[in-house]
Amino acid sequence: MHYKLAFIGFGNVARALARLFLRKQGALEAQGITFSFTGISTGRHGCAVNPDGLDIVKALEFVESRQSINSLSLFPITNSLETISHSAADVMFENSPVNKQTGQPAIDHIRAALNLGMHAITANKGLVVHGYRELTALAKSKGRQFRFESTVLGGAPVFSVFRETFPLAELSSFSGILNATTNIILSRMENGEDYEDAVEYCQSIGVAETDPANDVDGWDAAIKVAALATVLWDIPTTPQQVNPTGISKITSKMIAQAKAEGKRYKLVCSAEKVGDKVTASVAPQLVDPSSPLYNMMNSSTGITFRTDVILDYSIIETERDDMKGGPVETAYGLFADFVNIVKS
Amino acid sequence: MHYKLAFIGFGNVARALARLFLRKQGALEAQGITFSFTGISTGRHGCAVNPDGLDIVKALEFVESRQSINSLSLFPITNSLETISHSAADVMFENSPVNKQTGQPAIDHIRAALNLGMHAITANKGLVVHGYRELTALAKSKGRQFRFESTVLGGAPVFSVFRETFPLAELSSFSGILNATTNIILSRMENGEDYEDAVEYCQSIGVAETDPANDVDGWDAAIKVAALATVLWDIPTTPQQVNPTGISKITSKMIAQAKAEGKRYKLVCSAEKVGDKVTASVAPQLVDPSSPLYNMMNSSTGITFRTDVILDYSIIETERDDMKGGPVETAYGLFADFVNIVKS
Repeated sequence: MHYKLAFIGFGNVARALARLFLRKQGALEAQGITFSFTGISTGRHGCAVNPDGLDIVKALEFVESRQSINSLSLFPITNSLETISHSAADVMFENSPVNKQTGQPAIDHIRAALNLGMHAITANKGLVVHGYRELTALAKSKGRQFRFESTVLGGAPVFSVFRETFPLAELSSFSGILNATTNIILSRMENGEDYEDAVEYCQSIGVAETDPANDVDGWDAAIKVAALATVLWDIPTTPQQVNPTGISKITSKMIAQAKAEGKRYKLVCSAEKVGDKVTASVAPQLVDPSSPLYNMMNSSTGITFRTDVILDYSIIETERDDMKGGPVETAYGLFADFVNIVKS
Repeated sequence: MHYKLAFIGFGNVARALARLFLRKQGALEAQGITFSFTGISTGRHGCAVNPDGLDIVKALEFVESRQSINSLSLFPITNSLETISHSAADVMFENSPVNKQTGQPAIDHIRAALNLGMHAITANKGLVVHGYRELTALAKSKGRQFRFESTVLGGAPVFSVFRETFPLAELSSFSGILNATTNIILSRMENGEDYEDAVEYCQSIGVAETDPANDVDGWDAAIKVAALATVLWDIPTTPQQVNPTGISKITSKMIAQAKAEGKRYKLVCSAEKVGDKVTASVAPQLVDPSSPLYNMMNSSTGITFRTDVILDYSIIETERDDMKGGPVETAYGLFADFVNIVKS
């Protein structure tokens, strides 16, 4: 089977995904799967479509040297919706910048793609919070799929673990560390660094934004908790309902005292379902060594699930020396969604 | 769809599985899945078949009060192979005692079931080591499946996580704590208990056998490592190749010294693939807090996978107050195999 791919948004994650497709081309072919890139829409470097396949190597080169990709297009197009409609794609990857309050324009892109009979895949957690029910229902009505594995824990399998490997299990609660920036800050403060220096470090390695508020005030984590609750329980949950408390009131003194007591502050993300009601929270909590969260340090993140069928089940992603996370890892989650869709 | 189930072996795990089927009957029906028990073969309490369905509640009651189930049978049968062939089952659960050197008679049971067009599911890790390639090939040739999720980490998803949620990932190595008994012993020794008392404790809670050698000498762990390597890399690997070192030479003094240095001894189970060659080991190792294994205490077990696509990915099972592991948990792995097979 041959699949035509459209990329809406062509930033770090999308370009890492394009490179991953090229790296895994042989492995895909061994499974009878071939692909071509038929539409690319960028923020600042134009758009291009060609239902017979675009030159992806040139597209990567042009964008990375800040040139327009317009010249690669079979005919002139000017925006993302045109790219989608003229790409004749089978699968659309949505990785464009999203307004966090509305989920737009990404929701419109995904609606358009699904309405044209494409599968839609995104790494944007806001889309899950704002559009899960609508987009999943629309996908179903078109016989297509809407997937978003990369929205929580980077590209590591979480949603698919629940969807595919826990049949008929009832999830009663989860608890995790879902924001790397705050975990790095707390870890470094435990080693004696002060808050400002730890934030600056996170900015220097590209983990925290210039304004770190979204991370340190807990909103990034709250969106992830809301996305997990919305999907795993099919109960719409908003970040406002999670109502996060950030880490800004955790002082070096509090951390030192916790350490002296053999404990640690972690920005704990949790949710519980009782009956049809979800209670969710994001807040700093003292955890002791018996918690699976205690040992998640620095950029390691993870989540523990409590079900009615087995002991507590944790998924943890740990930093490693020979691989950086970030776009490369997020790209794998998008890629896994693609393979799982086309093989199902 | 209606599925007829045969249970070969009706010990703690199989009976917990029967109860789980009854508990999840409504949830299965909501997915269009109904079932009946059409064959049961026990070690000491007879055998029974009825293609129209046996009275499972009576079968549970009889076996648990040490009575024969022969009276439940539509006609007299005397052994497991007869139970399989007369059960007219769609799915056979193999949970009978297995000879660790040969995998028999369970391998014969599974061959017979697959040849009769049944799916075959087991929690016996020896079967994976002795029969993975043959039984998987036989299943495939019959359009059926051979599954064994419960063989490693109890009923927690491990094999299915790799099969379903890591498409086209290349596993380069894994490292874990796969034997609960030795982990409990080492944890208790760290708290000052001596080796003999810790072993006795494990026996008293039913985790260790009267002769604890299989656990403490590392063979239980080695079989699990061999099973993982055999399946995840499709490279036949034996426990003899793993050649385990047990924990019997780890003294209280060594443990105290490690503790003073902020480290811990763990019975580390690991394997690495380089080219087409697998190197595997089970041996006590000092681990420090940066290792995901460091925090797995008492009966908690887990495994860390290194792939070419994401950061290190760990699956950890943690003890919890409100649920005991053991048969109930193993039963869920068998149940999950069933649901995954019939939904695929």
